[in-house]
Amino acid sequence: MQKYEVLKKDQIEQIHETTMNVLEKIGVEFRYGPALDVFAKAGVKVEGQRVFLSRKMVEEQIKKAPGQFTLYARNPEKNVLLGGDSLVFTPGYGSPFITDLDRGKRQGTLEDFHNLAKLSGASPYQDLTGGILVEPNDIPTGRRHVEMAYSCIKNSDKCFMGSSYGDKCAQDIVKMMSLVFGPEWNPVQKPALLTLINSITPLIFDERMLGALMEYAKTGQAVVITSLTMAGATGPATLAGSLVCQNAEVLAGITLAQLIREGTPVIYGSASSITEMSTGSLTIGAPEMSLLTAASAQMARYYHLPCRGGGAISDVKTADAQAGYESMMNLLITEVSGINFVLHAAGIIESYNTISYEKFIIDDEICGMVKRIKKSFDVNQETLAFDVIKEVGPGGHFLDKEHTFHHFRGEFYRPALSNRTTYEMWKENGSRQAMEVANKKWKEILSNYQPPELPAQVDKALQKFMGEIK
Amino acid sequence: MQKYEVLKKDQIEQIHETTMNVLEKIGVEFRYGPALDVFAKAGVKVEGQRVFLSRKMVEEQIKKAPGQFTLYARNPEKNVLLGGDSLVFTPGYGSPFITDLDRGKRQGTLEDFHNLAKLSGASPYQDLTGGILVEPNDIPTGRRHVEMAYSCIKNSDKCFMGSSYGDKCAQDIVKMMSLVFGPEWNPVQKPALLTLINSITPLIFDERMLGALMEYAKTGQAVVITSLTMAGATGPATLAGSLVCQNAEVLAGITLAQLIREGTPVIYGSASSITEMSTGSLTIGAPEMSLLTAASAQMARYYHLPCRGGGAISDVKTADAQAGYESMMNLLITEVSGINFVLHAAGIIESYNTISYEKFIIDDEICGMVKRIKKSFDVNQETLAFDVIKEVGPGGHFLDKEHTFHHFRGEFYRPALSNRTTYEMWKENGSRQAMEVANKKWKEILSNYQPPELPAQVDKALQKFMGEIK
Repeated sequence: MQKYEVLKKDQIEQIHETTMNVLEKIGVEFRYGPALDVFAKAGVKVEGQRVFLSRKMVEEQIKKAPGQFTLYARNPEKNVLLGGDSLVFTPGYGSPFITDLDRGKRQGTLEDFHNLAKLSGASPYQDLTGGILVEPNDIPTGRRHVEMAYSCIKNSDKCFMGSSYGDKCAQDIVKMMSLVFGPEWNPVQKPALLTLINSITPLIFDERMLGALMEYAKTGQAVVITSLTMAGATGPATLAGSLVCQNAEVLAGITLAQLIREGTPVIYGSASSITEMSTGSLTIGAPEMSLLTAASAQMARYYHLPCRGGGAISDVKTADAQAGYESMMNLLITEVSGINFVLHAAGIIESYNTISYEKFIIDDEICGMVKRIKKSFDVNQETLAFDVIKEVGPGGHFLDKEHTFHHFRGEFYRPALSNRTTYEMWKENGSRQAMEVANKKWKEILSNYQPPELPAQVDKALQKFMGEIK
Repeated sequence: MQKYEVLKKDQIEQIHETTMNVLEKIGVEFRYGPALDVFAKAGVKVEGQRVFLSRKMVEEQIKKAPGQFTLYARNPEKNVLLGGDSLVFTPGYGSPFITDLDRGKRQGTLEDFHNLAKLSGASPYQDLTGGILVEPNDIPTGRRHVEMAYSCIKNSDKCFMGSSYGDKCAQDIVKMMSLVFGPEWNPVQKPALLTLINSITPLIFDERMLGALMEYAKTGQAVVITSLTMAGATGPATLAGSLVCQNAEVLAGITLAQLIREGTPVIYGSASSITEMSTGSLTIGAPEMSLLTAASAQMARYYHLPCRGGGAISDVKTADAQAGYESMMNLLITEVSGINFVLHAAGIIESYNTISYEKFIIDDEICGMVKRIKKSFDVNQETLAFDVIKEVGPGGHFLDKEHTFHHFRGEFYRPALSNRTTYEMWKENGSRQAMEVANKKWKEILSNYQPPELPAQVDKALQKFMGEIK
């Protein structure tokens, strides 16, 4: 089905050409010795930490990345396809703060992390449990990665995201997956982890991210190589120019991943947006963010790569109307433009700083609506319904027709949160706003949720392994 | 630029074929003698009030409708193009009730109408002032159409929508336009009115709407022929089946308009959505509404006609997060799918029953964001920005670059309502929700707004004419 496009073919090519010039003539800094060694060994020109990639090298390497791949969950029914026509949702990632209507804004804890993992596990629309669902600030940094991975494994049987805190943390998470899948697991054949690798804009990758990228690439795990170019601050104020910067960083990262292991599953990632020029801060509820997402989907298709972009993301401080319209804009654009992987699909407010329990529930409804749109509808003799239209005729109605009973449940999305009652019923029920309904709902989900069983010997092995981490 | 599509070409053709069968074999009721006479005179089979249109007749007549046309405003700078790549916004239409945070829900009055006409006139994103901005319940029904038209003319210099309350009201509004434009106005050469003509689903047009349609068609004014098929109630529960019903009604109405006067400017209108089956009531915040809008855009393109669909519409009772996400979904889909004319682009809550002052302001922001997305961005040597990227290099920043100063204002949408401050600033400013900010904003706009001047002799002539209406 035809997707929404914001770039013409020749404009895509212009962005590609300029990107090749940036990679060849300006270069990208890789601040990690082992990565520089990989490039040097492949005959790439390296000056200090600056890597100059030729067009030939980049074009050859990105061709080696798969156009789509499957990520394997501990419950095979929860495996996800990334690429092609798939649209995969994952909740908010990386917020240091958390908020809810009862307790207000505060630092996230491991208990909050568990709660979010449960909400994600219970959701019919979140495809991965998550990554850093919130920073567990009450846990020493050296142990956070294993505590988070364990929470994702224990509270849900969906795939989850690995740690990007350097090579050692990545090794720990791959080890934990081998405990989950057992000794027969072939990580290259059955990648189970998807990890977010961010560049530092403009045109840098740091040691921590590169350590993780290299470790995952070696074991065949998937990486989302993402640029968050802030147009006006870390990129040109023109969206075309910021796309060039983003494109250079992402392609450089993908080139490295392929040089490490040909066929490493990668996702072309965009989190680029604009700068609020009055304050110099990142703005993610901006319409320019949606344009960059749609353009990124086209760039990724041009390279035959799966694409990450968008999210139910907003700059608001509370889950109000602005939260609704910014989040729907940035999530609906993913479906219409053909994005495959969406990080931050639930909970984000305050430009990524905070994750909100209530907004998680609101965004999960948005995710359901966008997936309903994605499903579209069938056109065939049965659904075209000539016979029932003839039977009903002008002025009749379809409410009591067999055709209606047979089809409406499959055709109509059933909202979990949205109010569709009369005004009078709404008043009788306390004139509640969506965020108040959501407040009740997340508590209900948490109290009713039964995490899927984790085999006792796996649980024991994981705990033993975690006990060895200082 | 490529638009988002939900139907393949052969599916469009299947809907068209089934529609032709409905028109030929089931027929459409036209409950108005003069309309039946037009069909009979053209050799169409008429049985009682049932009109059976042949494929040949329909296909011939719809070809006579223009693919795009200009609507003329009293201020030529406010003329609007309908069709092609245009996206034209008009505020909410037809609500009997109005609400605001201070006074709550109540019946609309003429004073409310004036206020909404001013808010629309002041908006940079509403292209038409409106039609029935709210029902002025304090005015006798026989005078409402002229009072509303006068308010639109007096409070704004944009185009507005005519009355669809039968032939006599339509004549009055055309007469008022001739007083505005003066005796040199050629209504057929310079159509100034756009009027909403609704079918009664399934498959009926009533006397009131047909009287108006015929009157406007005779004078060359534009009509939006719209079906609001409720899948599951007044149409099949399958979206494909409801599209067939909608398509049959709209094409039948357009055929009549062309038989009356070849070349009558028409818009293919869809307001179709689904039924909430637990209550039997209309639901407009449903994702299926967005699918029907996108599909309608494709059907209209197939017929080379301008298309109406979508809106900033919601089932909510207050301007909360649900208002935001439903309204953005239904408005963003218009841009991505290629809709040309959007009724209900600001203010609607409660499934059309109520228009909200605060939501008008919130939706106007949504309109601005969607128009920013529509504008897209330029790709050329200047915007690709290779030189400034080279100058900045890895790890630098663009904040103080001439290229940034030169471009950011043109590239970045400036929000009128959305909060982009820090959390601390938001708290200091009273932790206000979007609806509270909007409450302050609409009052500011109303107290600052200066309606564009209306020549005294035109005003006098209009008042004299209105004085003669009982």
